[in-house]
Amino acid sequence: MGNGTFYGISVGPGDPELLTLKGLRLLQQAPVVAFPAGIGNKTGLAQQTVTPWLAPTQHQLSLHFPYVQDKDKLRQAWKVAADKVWQFLKIGKDVVFACEGDVSFYSTFTYLAQTLLQHHPDVLVESVPGVCSPVAAAAALGLPLTVGKQRLAVLPALYCLSDLEQALTWAETIVLLKISSVYSQVWQILQQYQLLERSWVVERVGLPDRVIYRDLHARPQLQLSYFSLLIVQQELPLSRTGLITDG
Amino acid sequence: MGNGTFYGISVGPGDPELLTLKGLRLLQQAPVVAFPAGIGNKTGLAQQTVTPWLAPTQHQLSLHFPYVQDKDKLRQAWKVAADKVWQFLKIGKDVVFACEGDVSFYSTFTYLAQTLLQHHPDVLVESVPGVCSPVAAAAALGLPLTVGKQRLAVLPALYCLSDLEQALTWAETIVLLKISSVYSQVWQILQQYQLLERSWVVERVGLPDRVIYRDLHARPQLQLSYFSLLIVQQELPLSRTGLITDG
Repeated sequence: MGNGTFYGISVGPGDPELLTLKGLRLLQQAPVVAFPAGIGNKTGLAQQTVTPWLAPTQHQLSLHFPYVQDKDKLRQAWKVAADKVWQFLKIGKDVVFACEGDVSFYSTFTYLAQTLLQHHPDVLVESVPGVCSPVAAAAALGLPLTVGKQRLAVLPALYCLSDLEQALTWAETIVLLKISSVYSQVWQILQQYQLLERSWVVERVGLPDRVIYRDLHARPQLQLSYFSLLIVQQELPLSRTGLITDG
Repeated sequence: MGNGTFYGISVGPGDPELLTLKGLRLLQQAPVVAFPAGIGNKTGLAQQTVTPWLAPTQHQLSLHFPYVQDKDKLRQAWKVAADKVWQFLKIGKDVVFACEGDVSFYSTFTYLAQTLLQHHPDVLVESVPGVCSPVAAAAALGLPLTVGKQRLAVLPALYCLSDLEQALTWAETIVLLKISSVYSQVWQILQQYQLLERSWVVERVGLPDRVIYRDLHARPQLQLSYFSLLIVQQELPLSRTGLITDG
């Protein structure tokens, strides 16, 4: 009997209906469904997203990934998680790992899959793409993210705040991820560049309690959750609907 | 009786299984399904993607968008297409427009929806996000697009070739879209920066005849189709699988 396959399934931004058909098929076929554990006693976003689609017979495997910067602690967590996954793969059971957003876009799956492959180089790993948060946020706003000749920059703002001004010099559209803890500093820069009316914040984009902030002038401070992003669209002529008039 | 709603449905990169559940539901509910006409007598990619999901009772509406730069010709085409859509909306029928990739990511839907709204400001327009080509290509490659603190730049290479060197100075990952006609110039730049082994071309990512070019050293020239993109990953330690070793 061969090993099981390890699937990274992109579950999208939180709405269970934003899974792909392929993601759903593989999710429902798998005997074991893994996901990142939530913080404290809370259910994590990926688990919350897939729960409506699971059968009671499927084994659920919660994996802990600490929210820390310490490389040794992270490596240790990835190894523990990879070992848990391997217990099933080695007896021929497929394991799907449900990822928030897209599996290739700032996802823990990358580290987990690589750790697994370091120790078990023959394991088959397959990724299923999905809806990443920038396109989900653009759709929620009724805005294009990009059109025509426009350039796009994506920055994890928490780490790359100093790059924002450079990005503003050459990309028409900038998406800032991990914005919550640096929002007020971002706001100062956007004010300086007179871009507050061309900036939008979307919080919990795929969830029923989604919040959109459309005019940032009066919002130098915002208490935002972890799942928040900010889109700056420098070029589009603004209209009533937020859509462009033409290229 | 009110007007129908105009839905922009992201159908993903070509695999009918990469539609979202929401996209499929709205697609199958709509009396009218529009899509961009293919070139010549060929079926367009969006139409090809949704065809397996349509019922014979659904009206199919092929809309022509010329592949030209001329703004007047484009505006005229958008107006003709918007008028065709409006004929159904005004009698209360919903129309879905099937978009290749994601509806907010370099899509004709933006222009079509805006043209419609200019003439009929009360029309309801709703966008459903989907799988955009960069994440689909990353999944096909078994590569992360981005992890951790990395920055991402997306450039439509046909128009922004001169920006590539600047992008290489600050973004760890660069995605070049519309690469086919400028590939050999891009290759020269990647060679100069010794990035050929860190660059991948994916052609027709969601289709059965998908092609992946993993080592570009021996490929200064490539005949690529319109649906091709190139990913440069400057930072990741390369491994057997192409995945990173750790953060």
